[in-house]
Amino acid sequence: MADYQSDKQTKREGNAISRRNLLKLAGVGGLGVIIGATGAGSVLNLVEGEAKKMDASPSLGNDIVPFYGKHQAGIATEAQNHVYFASLEVTASSLDDLKSLFQEWTVAASLMTQGQPVGEALTNGYVPPKDTGEAEGLSAANLTITFGVGPSLFVKDGKDRFGLKSKQPKELVDLPPFPLDALKEEWTGGDICIQACADDPQVAFHAARNLLRIARGKAILHWAQAGFQRTKQADANKETPRNLFGFKDGTANINVVDDKEMNKHVWVQGEDGPAWLTNGTYLIVRKIQMYIEVWDRTTLREQENTFGRHRASGAPLGQEKEHEKMDLARKNEQGDYVIPEDSHARIAFGDGKQKILRRPYSYADGMDPKTGSLDAGLLFLSFQQSPSTSFIPMQERLSRIDKLNEYTVHRGSAIFAIFPGIKKGEYIGQTLFG
Amino acid sequence: MADYQSDKQTKREGNAISRRNLLKLAGVGGLGVIIGATGAGSVLNLVEGEAKKMDASPSLGNDIVPFYGKHQAGIATEAQNHVYFASLEVTASSLDDLKSLFQEWTVAASLMTQGQPVGEALTNGYVPPKDTGEAEGLSAANLTITFGVGPSLFVKDGKDRFGLKSKQPKELVDLPPFPLDALKEEWTGGDICIQACADDPQVAFHAARNLLRIARGKAILHWAQAGFQRTKQADANKETPRNLFGFKDGTANINVVDDKEMNKHVWVQGEDGPAWLTNGTYLIVRKIQMYIEVWDRTTLREQENTFGRHRASGAPLGQEKEHEKMDLARKNEQGDYVIPEDSHARIAFGDGKQKILRRPYSYADGMDPKTGSLDAGLLFLSFQQSPSTSFIPMQERLSRIDKLNEYTVHRGSAIFAIFPGIKKGEYIGQTLFG
Repeated sequence: MADYQSDKQTKREGNAISRRNLLKLAGVGGLGVIIGATGAGSVLNLVEGEAKKMDASPSLGNDIVPFYGKHQAGIATEAQNHVYFASLEVTASSLDDLKSLFQEWTVAASLMTQGQPVGEALTNGYVPPKDTGEAEGLSAANLTITFGVGPSLFVKDGKDRFGLKSKQPKELVDLPPFPLDALKEEWTGGDICIQACADDPQVAFHAARNLLRIARGKAILHWAQAGFQRTKQADANKETPRNLFGFKDGTANINVVDDKEMNKHVWVQGEDGPAWLTNGTYLIVRKIQMYIEVWDRTTLREQENTFGRHRASGAPLGQEKEHEKMDLARKNEQGDYVIPEDSHARIAFGDGKQKILRRPYSYADGMDPKTGSLDAGLLFLSFQQSPSTSFIPMQERLSRIDKLNEYTVHRGSAIFAIFPGIKKGEYIGQTLFG
Repeated sequence: MADYQSDKQTKREGNAISRRNLLKLAGVGGLGVIIGATGAGSVLNLVEGEAKKMDASPSLGNDIVPFYGKHQAGIATEAQNHVYFASLEVTASSLDDLKSLFQEWTVAASLMTQGQPVGEALTNGYVPPKDTGEAEGLSAANLTITFGVGPSLFVKDGKDRFGLKSKQPKELVDLPPFPLDALKEEWTGGDICIQACADDPQVAFHAARNLLRIARGKAILHWAQAGFQRTKQADANKETPRNLFGFKDGTANINVVDDKEMNKHVWVQGEDGPAWLTNGTYLIVRKIQMYIEVWDRTTLREQENTFGRHRASGAPLGQEKEHEKMDLARKNEQGDYVIPEDSHARIAFGDGKQKILRRPYSYADGMDPKTGSLDAGLLFLSFQQSPSTSFIPMQERLSRIDKLNEYTVHRGSAIFAIFPGIKKGEYIGQTLFG
């Protein structure tokens, strides 16, 4: 077809280089094929080499998060505006398939996080494009992609699926049932997770979708959830983001730039877990529906007593500044605790020993057709070194006492071991899959 | 309670003024009460007056779209990054209730679009806060709120519900069924629509939620859908946004700054419709699911033939530049049209006489539990002066021939008459409700 000249067009469009491709210049036809032939390392080095020959795209600026490092990005990374979270079931049955899946994902993630497409888009019209195209022309938008594996990847229905049973960390087990849980299978568990975070929702969706596409024949989608925070652009004062109940969420969070805190509470260290997870962590996901309309009928006093904090400032009740330490002993004239005994902040704090890195997003999915209410809430995401001594005891308390339970319900739950980061030439999951 | 000092805190927090309130300073306790007592105009003037006394918030910048004007905002406004679209059913039975609902909404919308909360947040802890709070500290983020009414507001089940039957425009009738439609009741129709668009998803959600809350006892949610476009921040080259099939969407759109085009194709003028709709328009909404995984298995050639455009550039097939006029007569060596006879661009264009203002958003709602596929697609929104001579004939052609039908399915549909804009002292809907 004489008119089929998209390749020519590529050259004409100076502006559209941003997600035009490395691999095209390198003559690499298909990621899978090449990895099979030469190992992931070669491709990664090749990609790296070719990248230097490329002109920098005019649309790529300062919004690129490094892909390589001691830890995976998307954990200590300042939370981006959007998340697309996907939980997958593995359908492949061999360890080799699993390994090649993560090798292909590593190549694709290393490209997409740098603002590049996953493969050449336009050289041949007679095959499906390597990249699905909706992020073409867009910057990297601080995209991070974070991979992990769930307990069911190791053992499912009593079966050691991939010969990895002996490597399953003792912390990587399904969360215990908590009182008031109303979990639905369609939002629970998963063999693998992909957390794609970006300052642009289309960039985040594009990343998850292209990784799902690469997984065809090896893994399928189990569930997915898009989420948002207030955008940084609209938040000139850089306040702590607010949840959909209007309260600041994350005031007492771990400071991600404090290495000591991160090493103590977030990163798995030598003696804490299996060697393959060193510099990794555990992710806990809870899909928490919030009863928006019920909440909106309660008084401000009830709302503040529920959280144990002032809504406007985020300060602990009876105190003034958001980041003041809670005065849990203080009582009012009636002899009641100023920060009520069943308030969320008090119960979550407990004895102050359990610390988790919260990295939550809100969701708003239209109307719940069963109730006619807004289907909205929190996609709770937390990273911690040891779920058994942090999230689990905290949630056991909260699920029994927390006054917030009147206004929320947990609909989904999952736990994943999050791989450590990698150096160039390695692939995500290499420490586990070998 | 001695510790209950949120009012005091308000004064301490210099940074948090942005959505602190006008009405509080004005001593206005409740919008509904005041409107009932003095009429909407007085409140609007009051709000206006008080606004001038306020310090400008440091977080309010250049991202405010004027609320008042000849036309409602959110139509000719450059598309924001996010939409929260809500369709409502009216439960009230009197015209007075409807009128007061729109009066209250007008006050609330005039505040929220200027970056202000809907009412005082913190003066009294013993009542629910007027504003739900999740947009506190955020800028206006170019928020626009656009109101309209559907055919069922006029006549439902043969009943002239509010004595408005004689005012129902002949264009405001349910869309005819189109071949291949697979509409679901839960995404179809509605008495009233609220289109909240903003560059921040939390600001858009906040707006729709607070308006729904004000409607309590008068209207309930019928359906809602959140949507996104690529963000302007990630799109340094200001390209035409791409849909989730990776193609530019909106290339042949009406130029919103061209008054002549807008008057000819979008705004209802004197003779076109009832007087109450002059300077208004009609909105057509279609929720179009896109079969992402099926599309991703097709060749680039098939994809481009489906749209009739090149994916990379957006140019018509066989042409070079995105904005070139389609050469519909051109044939290739085999004697086939270069822009295939069943391609979306050709069929949509038709004889070139039907023009609509497209203002679509993508959606990505996780997994469709019935199929295991991604539940994603397009929230198609178009504004036009005369549906019967623009959208309807266009969609009749598309629904029969368009090759894109293999990859998409229409799940929802609605039509609304969009009120004209207002001057200060008036309320949205005043020309209809009197």
